[in-house]
Amino acid sequence: MSTKFWSDAARRLTPYVPGEQPKLANLVKLNTNENPYAPSPRVLQALRDEIGQHGDSLRLYPDPNASRLKQSIADCHGIASHQVFVGNGSDEVLAHVFLALLKQPRPLLFPDITYSFYPVYCRLYDIEFATLPLNDDFEIHIDDYARANGGIIFPNPNAPTGRLLALSEIERLLQTNTDSVVVIDEAYVDFGGASASAIPLIARYPNLLVVQTLSKSRALAGLRVGFAVGDTQLIEALERVKDSFNSYPLDRLAQTGAIAAFEDRAYFEQTCRAVVASRETLIDNLHKLGFDVLPSAANFVFARHPAHDAAKLATALRERSIIVRHFKQPRIKQFLRISIGTDVQCAALMSALREILR
Amino acid sequence: MSTKFWSDAARRLTPYVPGEQPKLANLVKLNTNENPYAPSPRVLQALRDEIGQHGDSLRLYPDPNASRLKQSIADCHGIASHQVFVGNGSDEVLAHVFLALLKQPRPLLFPDITYSFYPVYCRLYDIEFATLPLNDDFEIHIDDYARANGGIIFPNPNAPTGRLLALSEIERLLQTNTDSVVVIDEAYVDFGGASASAIPLIARYPNLLVVQTLSKSRALAGLRVGFAVGDTQLIEALERVKDSFNSYPLDRLAQTGAIAAFEDRAYFEQTCRAVVASRETLIDNLHKLGFDVLPSAANFVFARHPAHDAAKLATALRERSIIVRHFKQPRIKQFLRISIGTDVQCAALMSALREILR
Repeated sequence: MSTKFWSDAARRLTPYVPGEQPKLANLVKLNTNENPYAPSPRVLQALRDEIGQHGDSLRLYPDPNASRLKQSIADCHGIASHQVFVGNGSDEVLAHVFLALLKQPRPLLFPDITYSFYPVYCRLYDIEFATLPLNDDFEIHIDDYARANGGIIFPNPNAPTGRLLALSEIERLLQTNTDSVVVIDEAYVDFGGASASAIPLIARYPNLLVVQTLSKSRALAGLRVGFAVGDTQLIEALERVKDSFNSYPLDRLAQTGAIAAFEDRAYFEQTCRAVVASRETLIDNLHKLGFDVLPSAANFVFARHPAHDAAKLATALRERSIIVRHFKQPRIKQFLRISIGTDVQCAALMSALREILR
Repeated sequence: MSTKFWSDAARRLTPYVPGEQPKLANLVKLNTNENPYAPSPRVLQALRDEIGQHGDSLRLYPDPNASRLKQSIADCHGIASHQVFVGNGSDEVLAHVFLALLKQPRPLLFPDITYSFYPVYCRLYDIEFATLPLNDDFEIHIDDYARANGGIIFPNPNAPTGRLLALSEIERLLQTNTDSVVVIDEAYVDFGGASASAIPLIARYPNLLVVQTLSKSRALAGLRVGFAVGDTQLIEALERVKDSFNSYPLDRLAQTGAIAAFEDRAYFEQTCRAVVASRETLIDNLHKLGFDVLPSAANFVFARHPAHDAAKLATALRERSIIVRHFKQPRIKQFLRISIGTDVQCAALMSALREILR
């Protein structure tokens, strides 16, 4: 294909490849870390109310500032709404973070094994970066980041490992790294137990930005809502980029559904607890089959079998209508990333694995 | 406020300011060119069906490729789905167009009076541009664009003038301008009569990209869906940028609602006809009050009164709970841009204007 009309920017890209969204029904879909439970009934009712009898509100633009949603997020975390930025999933939030805050003369630092969208954003915005290897136990070693940098970003829990870094380690980083922005990408933090989140630290560290999403713990991957919280200076930079890109990235139904999701705290806590319980059972069962499983604080596990090739296992599972995610990167190519399903789905996975390993 | 942690990219921005989205009820809102009619009842039913009893689909990511929606758009316009790109409103589509296709060594060309987001995108992506003045009748003069350029973009009908350029003029431009991309931004084209759209020309001009939105003629500003159609080479560049930015910009409900909107052609045609009829009546009535009104092929009119200051008129209307849009740019600061409302809203506007001008 000719690329005559492309910009140089378009030519240098290596796009991100999201996990497959298969159109087949009756699959056990454990490949993109969705919540196995539906969103809160309050979300559904709020959506029905917004559509109403005649859908008259849908002809009108949404609130470009998403003020009510920002207030809901602020109330949930005990902060002010001007410390909140919202976007179309945490992916859009992260894209704006890379351009507004992480495009700097010095290189951005992140782990070698991490969310594979980070280097894609760097190529999109021509940002220099350096990756620092996880240790042999696939942990982030915070002392490695004590070097000149234009910013630091990593997920906590990390993806696709699922390992959680203690908040005290993050604070240790913030105490010495005061001249560049530190982004903690907490897509999975709600499965990591109380006091896993770095949000309480934003009051003391003006260079700390915490990113979260409603796609996992709030079961709203289908609605595309993510957010960032931090000092007003950081939020203002994000707002400027957002308002130079798209005034209304969150549609009326996404805003409505997200607000309702924050209102039903009991449902949120109950479903998070259920996912964590299923995860612990799954880890026990995988151990019994001889798998090595990294400690997980997320809604997925990262596991390898010493005697079975991961790519072959993934193929054998797919033949049994079970989809998990396999990454081809050298250090992790013998691992499978398995999302936590319902107990029925976890049982189907275990039964298939027993059959394959027999 | 300190900007210590901002990137240079964030510092150089001058964000776009969208039309106000007031939270007060009982306003006659004629400031952001929304459709005065609700979306098709089929859209509402499709949304209710997607939410369903338990909302189980909302926990799952949407189709990142929006394949069914692309096919609906392709079917509607008699083209192939690989000639279609979709995004979160035409604003997001345009943002990707600027980076993927219009960021070139030579300057981008657009009119001096046009959609005010264009220079914002140029600053976002550091794109050089030159503006060419509309003529004294606020028309685009196509011969002005016969010069070296890195791309050409203008809305047709133009905004905020509402003036339509004949398709023969666009084809004349394409016959001579073959080395850079020409983007026709057709947000309002469905109110411009049959054969106003340049979409039939994409088969013959590989450098032509046509952008449309569902926010105006399909009454779905609240759902944020826009699209671009053109040669596969152009679409592929947009997909690469999109997949380097956000895999899932269209949520499940936006995709569902948009597909249903294309299925109800009768409703679409009927509401477009009603808006056009109201526009013609409004223009007649404004003439009777002494206004100059530019010929409009859009769902708004651009009008000035020789004896009354536009800013003062806008303020006087606002005091009567009627909101119209006033731009402060020198050449057009004596104009008001008035969206076409329902006949009741148009009558309220006329009644208020008669009172103010008395």
